[in-house]
Amino acid sequence: VVAFSSGNHAQGVALAARVCDSHAIVFMPRDAPAAKLAATRAYGAEVRFYDRQVEDREVLARALVMQSGRTLVPPYDDPRIIAGQGTATLELVQDTAGLDALVAPIGGGGLMAGAAIAARACRPAIKLYGVEPETANDTWLSLRAGQPVTIAPPATLADGLRVTCPGALTFPLLRAHLDEVLLVTEDEIKTAARWLALRMKLVVEPSGAVALAALMAGRLPLPAGARVGVILSGGNVDAATLSALLE
Amino acid sequence: VVAFSSGNHAQGVALAARVCDSHAIVFMPRDAPAAKLAATRAYGAEVRFYDRQVEDREVLARALVMQSGRTLVPPYDDPRIIAGQGTATLELVQDTAGLDALVAPIGGGGLMAGAAIAARACRPAIKLYGVEPETANDTWLSLRAGQPVTIAPPATLADGLRVTCPGALTFPLLRAHLDEVLLVTEDEIKTAARWLALRMKLVVEPSGAVALAALMAGRLPLPAGARVGVILSGGNVDAATLSALLE
Repeated sequence: VVAFSSGNHAQGVALAARVCDSHAIVFMPRDAPAAKLAATRAYGAEVRFYDRQVEDREVLARALVMQSGRTLVPPYDDPRIIAGQGTATLELVQDTAGLDALVAPIGGGGLMAGAAIAARACRPAIKLYGVEPETANDTWLSLRAGQPVTIAPPATLADGLRVTCPGALTFPLLRAHLDEVLLVTEDEIKTAARWLALRMKLVVEPSGAVALAALMAGRLPLPAGARVGVILSGGNVDAATLSALLE
Repeated sequence: VVAFSSGNHAQGVALAARVCDSHAIVFMPRDAPAAKLAATRAYGAEVRFYDRQVEDREVLARALVMQSGRTLVPPYDDPRIIAGQGTATLELVQDTAGLDALVAPIGGGGLMAGAAIAARACRPAIKLYGVEPETANDTWLSLRAGQPVTIAPPATLADGLRVTCPGALTFPLLRAHLDEVLLVTEDEIKTAARWLALRMKLVVEPSGAVALAALMAGRLPLPAGARVGVILSGGNVDAATLSALLE
């Protein structure tokens, strides 16, 4: 199989390939966190680097698929990936009585689209909020424009959310289901990740902490006492980055 | 109420006192981690400091009890505290089929004594291992001597295990139930805490990571494939200490 990913999908594909006695080649950005790179290789995948400022990872991956006959496993713009990413929310909604709202990160939109489908199916009146770093606001811009907007490769601590354009499949799903996209600053992301480590005793990477960051910053337009589900979507952070977040 | 504690029991007593509309005075060592001090105060307790090199916290606490008429809530040498600390193991054994062994930290021995009683009651053949830092080996020495041995106030990263002598109640329970006490080095504690953060995504303080440290260092005399329950007993670590553990 072939995949492209900033790191978490890469690890999933690498492990799944190993479990199935297959082999994965994964395109990762040259500035991917060392922890994600090391874990992807440790699961047995071959990693090929690209420069996210000048190269299009999807073009590279599709060229390799054409040439090799391997199967592409895209990181978000695929119905099966969206469904799989929705299972976390399905479990959350099934385990939690009476959620009023759900908030989740938006990178390519697969997690958010899956979360929205699962949450709405179980609780039609639930409020759905997606969160992006303010520097990686492609979905926020796209929803305002009514069509996908492409931004320049963004700079943000949230390396899993450095996506330049919502997906062809995910964008219409987000447009249909989301109540609002909320933006958070880099400082708000750091505050949330730090609070998670020191008070919740959970190591969550910056990308995985943006939903909580929006909640902690008071961005959710909800009355006091509302029951809010928060998706924390990854904990793959370098020791050095985690250490810097704590200081 | 009055308590003395390196920090975790202090927080529990402070919160319990608030919930019961009471008020706690807690004796804490002057070198207690800032996170534990701040959390204890945030739960509404009054903190009084002592110097653990030259003062006996129990003498200070009992003098205050005599003078004020308050109730003492000791950190480990009390049947109710031992029973309460055993509930974590009770839940673990009930949730986990077929544990062959259980390993837990030893400070004053309350957690280990409670764990031993709970585990043996549910699974009489279970192997029980307690772990101490090699510099804070009062229980290890006491079991060899057949009676409680007092050591000098020990230096170890595991601030919750800086106890100088096993308890009058806990020692006979540990002697009756433990298969062995294992010792771990400071480096082994750091390695375990770091692995928990980076691979398990759990922030565990050094004291809480000693049981895993013994397992990772291969100290448990068990055959391959044995099912081992590991108690991780605290996550109250300063940002600076956690940061240093990661480097």
